[in-house]
Amino acid sequence: MRGFYIGRFQPYHNGHQHMVEAISDEVDELVLGIGSAGDSHTPRNPFTAGERVMMLTKSLAEFDLTTYVVPIEDLDRNSVWVSHVQSMSPKFDVAYSNNPLVIQLFEEAGVEVRRSPMFRREVLEGTELRQRMIDDGDWENLVPEPVAGVIEEIGGVDRIQHVADSDSNGAGDD
Amino acid sequence: MRGFYIGRFQPYHNGHQHMVEAISDEVDELVLGIGSAGDSHTPRNPFTAGERVMMLTKSLAEFDLTTYVVPIEDLDRNSVWVSHVQSMSPKFDVAYSNNPLVIQLFEEAGVEVRRSPMFRREVLEGTELRQRMIDDGDWENLVPEPVAGVIEEIGGVDRIQHVADSDSNGAGDD
Amino acid sequence: MRGFYIGRFQPYHNGHQHMVEAISDEVDELVLGIGSAGDSHTPRNPFTAGERVMMLTKSLAEFDLTTYVVPIEDLDRNSVWVSHVQSMSPKFDVAYSNNPLVIQLFEEAGVEVRRSPMFRREVLEGTELRQRMIDDGDWENLVPEPVAGVIEEIGGVDRIQHVADSDSNGAGDD
Amino acid sequence: MRGFYIGRFQPYHNGHQHMVEAISDEVDELVLGIGSAGDSHTPRNPFTAGERVMMLTKSLAEFDLTTYVVPIEDLDRNSVWVSHVQSMSPKFDVAYSNNPLVIQLFEEAGVEVRRSPMFRREVLEGTELRQRMIDDGDWENLVPEPVAGVIEEIGGVDRIQHVADSDSNGAGDD
Amino acid sequence: MRGFYIGRFQPYHNGHQHMVEAISDEVDELVLGIGSAGDSHTPRNPFTAGERVMMLTKSLAEFDLTTYVVPIEDLDRNSVWVSHVQSMSPKFDVAYSNNPLVIQLFEEAGVEVRRSPMFRREVLEGTELRQRMIDDGDWENLVPEPVAGVIEEIGGVDRIQHVADSDSNGAGDD
Amino acid sequence: MRGFYIGRFQPYHNGHQHMVEAISDEVDELVLGIGSAGDSHTPRNPFTAGERVMMLTKSLAEFDLTTYVVPIEDLDRNSVWVSHVQSMSPKFDVAYSNNPLVIQLFEEAGVEVRRSPMFRREVLEGTELRQRMIDDGDWENLVPEPVAGVIEEIGGVDRIQHVADSDSNGAGDD
Repeated sequence: MRGFYIGRFQPYHNGHQHMVEAISDEVDELVLGIGSAGDSHTPRNPFTAGERVMMLTKSLAEFDLTTYVVPIEDLDRNSVWVSHVQSMSPKFDVAYSNNPLVIQLFEEAGVEVRRSPMFRREVLEGTELRQRMIDDGDWENLVPEPVAGVIEEIGGVDRIQHVADSDSNGAGDD
Repeated sequence: MRGFYIGRFQPYHNGHQHMVEAISDEVDELVLGIGSAGDSHTPRNPFTAGERVMMLTKSLAEFDLTTYVVPIEDLDRNSVWVSHVQSMSPKFDVAYSNNPLVIQLFEEAGVEVRRSPMFRREVLEGTELRQRMIDDGDWENLVPEPVAGVIEEIGGVDRIQHVADSDSNGAGDD
Repeated sequence: MRGFYIGRFQPYHNGHQHMVEAISDEVDELVLGIGSAGDSHTPRNPFTAGERVMMLTKSLAEFDLTTYVVPIEDLDRNSVWVSHVQSMSPKFDVAYSNNPLVIQLFEEAGVEVRRSPMFRREVLEGTELRQRMIDDGDWENLVPEPVAGVIEEIGGVDRIQHVADSDSNGAGDD
Repeated sequence: MRGFYIGRFQPYHNGHQHMVEAISDEVDELVLGIGSAGDSHTPRNPFTAGERVMMLTKSLAEFDLTTYVVPIEDLDRNSVWVSHVQSMSPKFDVAYSNNPLVIQLFEEAGVEVRRSPMFRREVLEGTELRQRMIDDGDWENLVPEPVAGVIEEIGGVDRIQHVADSDSNGAGDD
Repeated sequence: MRGFYIGRFQPYHNGHQHMVEAISDEVDELVLGIGSAGDSHTPRNPFTAGERVMMLTKSLAEFDLTTYVVPIEDLDRNSVWVSHVQSMSPKFDVAYSNNPLVIQLFEEAGVEVRRSPMFRREVLEGTELRQRMIDDGDWENLVPEPVAGVIEEIGGVDRIQHVADSDSNGAGDD
Repeated sequence: MRGFYIGRFQPYHNGHQHMVEAISDEVDELVLGIGSAGDSHTPRNPFTAGERVMMLTKSLAEFDLTTYVVPIEDLDRNSVWVSHVQSMSPKFDVAYSNNPLVIQLFEEAGVEVRRSPMFRREVLEGTELRQRMIDDGDWENLVPEPVAGVIEEIGGVDRIQHVADSDSNGAGDD
């Protein structure tokens, strides 16, 4: 059985890693969809899709599980979102999410969804993590080791600190 | 004479129905433009364009008026909005609106606009109506009977309650 | 039962009208989807969506059938096309088409499709009809009377003759 | 040496004019990029790209400097923003900006950026200026004379006052 | 009076220069719209908008005429094309074109269009010019001197020769 | 060192597999970019991005090489194509391509490109392979075994045969 787990992974952190570990007991293969793939360089979405692909692929290597990492660009139309995801991903049997909108869309399309209380914690951890980066706090112990390596290599902390100082949402909107 | 009346119709309710009744005294034919046609599955825009087409068409049947119901997708560029609307709609002589931006755009393009104090009430009613659906309150008596039927058929109350629980604006942005 | 019949309807002609007549024996309600709604002012797609809405609505009045006329803009992505169509249209039970791609997409999505040998003839008639307009030939007897009226009102013959003289596909591409 | 200076210029005012004067000491030629070129008719972005082209071109005539005025539409993807700007502009050697995101994007792309304390003042002046227009206050002395002429010619004060009364961000979203 | 003259200007050549000279007798100011601004790096559209801005601005310096050079990205929708152009350009009174589609669109929108037999020659010259570049033929004497300088500076001949060797229309479509 | 190799992989075949084998001698890690990721269900682009992700991931398992498989949607603007690719991919040091446009774009952006005579053969093989599928010929021996499995599982031969019968390029354009 193949599962599908979507997130923005900005960045991929220990909460995500624990979720994958839990899901790995239930599926043979797992697709990880990187949402909002086109977004980057903002305080909420600091990393590019390519940078996130690297974080995930390196962190997933420790599991004995066939994984697929797929960037998914926004289509900004909820009514076709499931079809869009399905066209970008290897066919999957079950989706993992705790986001009410994602659940509603998958269920209207007849896709089985499994929830987990761990999801909510992840969201909080993502926000906390980015804030610590901005504040020069301690964040390295909240992410798998390869993620810390990627962020260091690309100058990720500098980047999020710089753009957090911006009062605009896009470069064309200054 | 043909009139044009645009709204998001999320959902079509009694306030809209009264407006159409009032307009029907002034025109021979009426085009109803369904704005933000691509939006759905959010608390503010719960219904798809197709669902709204059905609500309007069935509710308009009671009037002795030739009507056209036209979904209009957003183009996100105010300067070409009037041309976009005109290309999607049968040619019209007068537009009905109370939205200051819509009025400004039509008037700059040389289209006659008629205002009505009823418009403002409609907007309030739409917000009130959606909140009642979310709160499991009494909403059926605020909409024409065929609209209640459509909403029941598609599980509309469940949908808006589920997505209202979401803290995100789009499925790709969870 | 509700059926769905899609075409570009450039313009709506007698072949389409005969198809609708045939379909009307099989369904209670019929949705007519106007494909490539954003295209206009080319030799192959001379008329705007709004002009085509008017042609169809007026021609369908002679049938005792509840109809919905829905412009559908291109999304240029086959994998989400069915979802896009479904979001723009009242829910339908069966689709009518003879286009192999449309059939394939609907069938992969689990939608029943009915074919008809009349479809092929329509396509030929559409091409023939536009050529006659360009050549100032006799075309009025190939379309329902209201369509001839719309085309005359908008100066449609002049338009197609002028743009047919262009060697470009878009105004920005001269 | 050719410089690049980007802004929304809604409208072009004395703060911008002083910046150009200061930059003119450092460069031989200057490209002025009009950001968010597709936005107009909102309280924050009242003027079209074309109207802003006219404001800038006429105001720049007083400098003895070769200038290029280039509207730049938003691409809504920070990761390709620098390439987009570079493709729309004559090749430049140095960019002038105080926007942290713009600086970050240019620097990641290896483009030299020069900052100026004058920038921050400009942003404040733009907001103040638009508010004065809305409030029928005194604004003419905050802009170069040709800008006041353009705004008067296009009925700009009326426009911003009308759309400021709107509680929506787009005509399709009423 | 202000005129508007649109072309792709790939590249700007002597035929264009003669047209501008002729138009300069009829107008006080002239807007030059650079069409298909987003296209580049193909045999038919080798140069970026920014490169073309530079070619035009430098070539126009010899005329005693106020000119505006405005890149215009394609919108791929003929029905809103005139509005799009008008929003990107300073307001103009008359358009110059010999392209039947452009003429039709402007005239349907009520804009006066002036034709010139020189236009057709230009188109032929553009094609001929690009072919000579590809074939390493003599092309420098067909363009104003500043254009030859720009093309040399950016390695334009190398570029068109390289991409002409490609059997694909886009980098993503190889 | 990390390499980047882009193709449409419609489908992934033995020629691609040999290229990867050859490249694997030169790099430590390899990113495979799936171009035109949004295209599917046409004779030239029969498979979705997700289907191609599965083909590649399963075929690459036999190599002792860290690989990343990244779908890349078209952006239809050559001037920003390199930035787009770079944002979707883990950072790479060298690109492998024989497509003249791809080479030109990467080289203008300062990216090292390596060519191989094997590339041309691949393109021919892709066309040949799809034709054999359409003609019910022998194709299985031209692809790695896992690819044949994927194509069988999704009914790929039926699909390409059906859409090859279509005379249109898109469902909305019938």
